[in-house]
Amino acid sequence: MITINFNNVLSGRVGQKHGLTRSKLNQVIKKHAHICRQIQKERQVGQLPFMDLPYQSVNAIWKLARQKARRYENFVLLGIGGSALGPIALHRSLNHPFHNVLDRRQRKNWPRLFILDNVDPEEINALFKLIDPKKTIFNVITKSGTTAEPVSCFMLALSILKRKLGARYKNNLIVTTDPKKGFLRRMVEQEKLVSFEVPPGVGGRYSVLSPVGLVPAAFTGIDIKKVLAGAAKMDRLCQRAKPGKNPAYVSSVINFLFDHKKNKNMLVMMPYSSALKDMADWFRQLWAESLGKKYNVKGRKVFTGSTPLKALGVTDQHSQVQLYNEGPNDKLIVFIEPGKYRTKLTIPSLFKNVPEAGFLAGKTFNQLIRAEKKGTEIALTDNQRPNYTIKLPNISPESVGALFYFLELQTAYAGKLYNVNAFDQPGVEAGKIATLKLMGKKM
Amino acid sequence: MITINFNNVLSGRVGQKHGLTRSKLNQVIKKHAHICRQIQKERQVGQLPFMDLPYQSVNAIWKLARQKARRYENFVLLGIGGSALGPIALHRSLNHPFHNVLDRRQRKNWPRLFILDNVDPEEINALFKLIDPKKTIFNVITKSGTTAEPVSCFMLALSILKRKLGARYKNNLIVTTDPKKGFLRRMVEQEKLVSFEVPPGVGGRYSVLSPVGLVPAAFTGIDIKKVLAGAAKMDRLCQRAKPGKNPAYVSSVINFLFDHKKNKNMLVMMPYSSALKDMADWFRQLWAESLGKKYNVKGRKVFTGSTPLKALGVTDQHSQVQLYNEGPNDKLIVFIEPGKYRTKLTIPSLFKNVPEAGFLAGKTFNQLIRAEKKGTEIALTDNQRPNYTIKLPNISPESVGALFYFLELQTAYAGKLYNVNAFDQPGVEAGKIATLKLMGKKM
Repeated sequence: MITINFNNVLSGRVGQKHGLTRSKLNQVIKKHAHICRQIQKERQVGQLPFMDLPYQSVNAIWKLARQKARRYENFVLLGIGGSALGPIALHRSLNHPFHNVLDRRQRKNWPRLFILDNVDPEEINALFKLIDPKKTIFNVITKSGTTAEPVSCFMLALSILKRKLGARYKNNLIVTTDPKKGFLRRMVEQEKLVSFEVPPGVGGRYSVLSPVGLVPAAFTGIDIKKVLAGAAKMDRLCQRAKPGKNPAYVSSVINFLFDHKKNKNMLVMMPYSSALKDMADWFRQLWAESLGKKYNVKGRKVFTGSTPLKALGVTDQHSQVQLYNEGPNDKLIVFIEPGKYRTKLTIPSLFKNVPEAGFLAGKTFNQLIRAEKKGTEIALTDNQRPNYTIKLPNISPESVGALFYFLELQTAYAGKLYNVNAFDQPGVEAGKIATLKLMGKKM
Repeated sequence: MITINFNNVLSGRVGQKHGLTRSKLNQVIKKHAHICRQIQKERQVGQLPFMDLPYQSVNAIWKLARQKARRYENFVLLGIGGSALGPIALHRSLNHPFHNVLDRRQRKNWPRLFILDNVDPEEINALFKLIDPKKTIFNVITKSGTTAEPVSCFMLALSILKRKLGARYKNNLIVTTDPKKGFLRRMVEQEKLVSFEVPPGVGGRYSVLSPVGLVPAAFTGIDIKKVLAGAAKMDRLCQRAKPGKNPAYVSSVINFLFDHKKNKNMLVMMPYSSALKDMADWFRQLWAESLGKKYNVKGRKVFTGSTPLKALGVTDQHSQVQLYNEGPNDKLIVFIEPGKYRTKLTIPSLFKNVPEAGFLAGKTFNQLIRAEKKGTEIALTDNQRPNYTIKLPNISPESVGALFYFLELQTAYAGKLYNVNAFDQPGVEAGKIATLKLMGKKM
C-alpha cells in the first residue's frame, strides 16, 4: 500500500523557520480531526458521490470494450479539463510509454488513444487528417453538454462520421454525459446512441474513477477493475484509520499548514517516474480548482489556495531544482516514488577506466534514478526546503487507483481546512461568458 | 515581428495595488537603461556568446542532415535539461503535432524523433525495444561529458550499436559536446566520430540555437537557417531600439517589478497554441535556473527569483484559471498568441436550433480559440490579475527563432535587474554530489 514519509517537513530536519515541530503538527491534526468524521457524514448522506465510485459496477464498460475496442484502430477522446486529464493520467501511467507508435500487434490490437483537449485548429486538423474515421471510435465527454470545446470538436467528428458512414455512424460514437440533463443526453435518447453517465454530483476533477476515466482506459486494455480495487483499498484504509494515521488527512493538514503558516504558496508534485508525470498534471487541476477560491463557505472574501506545480524527476533536476534549492523558500515539495519499477535495466560495463563514466558501469538505471531522488531530497533538506515522499509499492492498476483516491480525498479534507467549497469553480464563469459573447451566443 | 501589449499590467486596468502606473514603469525603465548598454558591452568582449549564435554557419549541420537523415527511421536524442528542452520546443512548435505517428511517406522520409531526458528504466527499456538500432541515429548531447543521465543512456546505446553493427556503429552516432574538454571529446578524436560543438561559454539553457537544438531540428526537416534568421532579426531589433522600445528589456523590467514590488512570485507563461506548449517548458528552465539564486553578484545572500509556471490555452482554462482568477493575487500572466494559425478549420453547421451548440455552427476553431483567449484576458483583468500578451505574427521557423532569442535576452537583462549571475547553477551541485556518492563514485 501507499506509505508516506513526512520526516523532512519537521523542524528537526529543515529548521524552526521552515519546518513544523512534531508537537505543533500533532496538535493541529487533533484540532481538526472532526473533519474526518464530517467528510464521512457528508458521504453517508450522498453529498460526496466521488467517494463511492470505487464500488460501482463496471461490467457494462468492460463488456463493451472487450466486444468493440479491438475492432478499431483509434480511440479519440473529445473532452477538456477533468474529462481529459484523468484519462491521460491513467493512460500514461498504465499503458506503454510509446503506445501510439506501437504497431497493432505490439498493442495487442488495442486502439491508439488520442485526446483532443484543446481547440487549436492546427492540432485538430492534423488529427483528423491522420486517422481514418471509419476505423475510429469517438468518445465525447462533457457532463453538462454545454462546454464549447468538446462540443465544437464533437460537431466536427459527427459531421465527418455521418458523411463517411451514413446511419452506421452510431457504431463509432460513445457519449459520456449527465444521466438526464443537456442536449447530448437528449440526442442519445433520440438517436439511441451508446452512452455512459457522469454520475450526478461528481465534478470533472473528481471523475477519473467514473466512466469519464474508465471508458478510455478499458478501451486501451487497462484492467479497470483493479484500478477500482486499489481505490477501494485506499478508501477503507482512510476510513478505518484514526485521524493521525489517515494519510490523506495528515497530508492535507501538512499541505494546508505550509501554505497558511509557513508562507509556502506553492505545492510541487514531483514523481520520479515518467509514467506518473501526468498524474501530477491531473493533480494540478484537482488542487487548483478545488481550493483556489475568492470566497470561503461563509461568503467572506479570502482569495485563498496554494498553487500546484508539476515537476518530473530526474528531468527537472536539470531545470527547476536550482530554483527549488536556492530561490525563495516558498514551496512545499511532494515526491512520488515507486518502490519498484516495472523493468530492471542494467547500464553496460563500458568505460571502466574513465572517471566520468566508469562508476556507472554495471549498475542499473533503477539504482541511478533512486540515487538521484535521494540526492535531491538530501540537498533540498539541507537547504531547509520542506519536502515529503509518497511511496507507491509499484506502478500498477491498483496502486494508481489508490493514488487517485488518496489525492482526491486529501483535497476534500483540504477544502474543510481552507474552509472553502472544494467542489465548485465559480471563477471560470466570467471568462466563459465573455468568450461566448464574443462568439455571438445570446446570453 | 513579435509585438507585446503591456496594457493589462497598468494600474488603469488592474488597479493601483496590483498594477504599475505608467510613470513608475517609465521611471524604472529609464533608471536601469544602462543595462542594455552593459549587455552589449559584455557581448562585444565575448562574454555572452549565446547572443552571436544567430550568425553562426550551419552549413555543416545542414549538409549532414540532408545526406544522412532520411536514410534512418529514428533519431534518438540522449540529453537532459537544456540539451532536451530546446530540441523538444523546436520540434513541437515546427514539426507535425503527431510526427512520430505518421508513416514514412507522410513524414517525407524524415526520421521519427525520440528524446530520452530521464533515466527511468521503464521508459528507456520501452524505447530500446521499440526501435531498430540499425535504423537509428543516436545524438548524445552533454557539454561537459560528465552528466550521469545522458552518459548512462549513451553507454547503453553504444553497447547495443557495437553489438549490432560492429565497427560501422560510427555511422549511427553523433556526439555534441565541448570542443576541447571531457571524455566524449577525447572519444570523438580517438575514434573519429561525427561531432558538433557546444560553443564555449554557452550554457545548456541558452543553447537551443547552437548545434544542441539545430542538429535534431535539421534531422527532422526544420529549416534551421530560417530559425536563425528570425533570431537575428530579433537581435537587431533589440540592439537598435531605445531601451523604452526594446521589448526584451521592457518585459524584463515588468517581470522583475511584479516579483519585487508587487508580490507576484510566480510568472505564468500561457501560449494559446498546442504547438507552443513546450516553448513554455523550455522557458521554465531558462528563467528558473538563471534567476533562482542564493547569492547576488556581490556575494550577499538574496534567495531570489520568481517561479516560472507553464500553462496551455485553452486547455488550462479548465484547470488553472479558477485559481488564477480567484486565488491569491500572486502571479503575473504572460500570454503568447499567434496572429495566424497554420490552418483554418470550420466548425460544421450542425445543431442550429440547439442553444448550447448552435452558436458555434459555421464559425471557425480559429475564431473560437481567439475568443477564448480574449475572454480569459478580460476576466483576469477585471479580477485585477496583471497580464500581458506576446503576439507572434504566426508560427514559423522565423517567429519561433525570434521568440527563443527574445526570451533569452529578456532573461539576461533580468539577471542584471535581479543582480545575480544568470549563467551559473551552483544550486544543483549539492544534489549531484550526493547522487554520485550514492552511486559509488570516488569524489
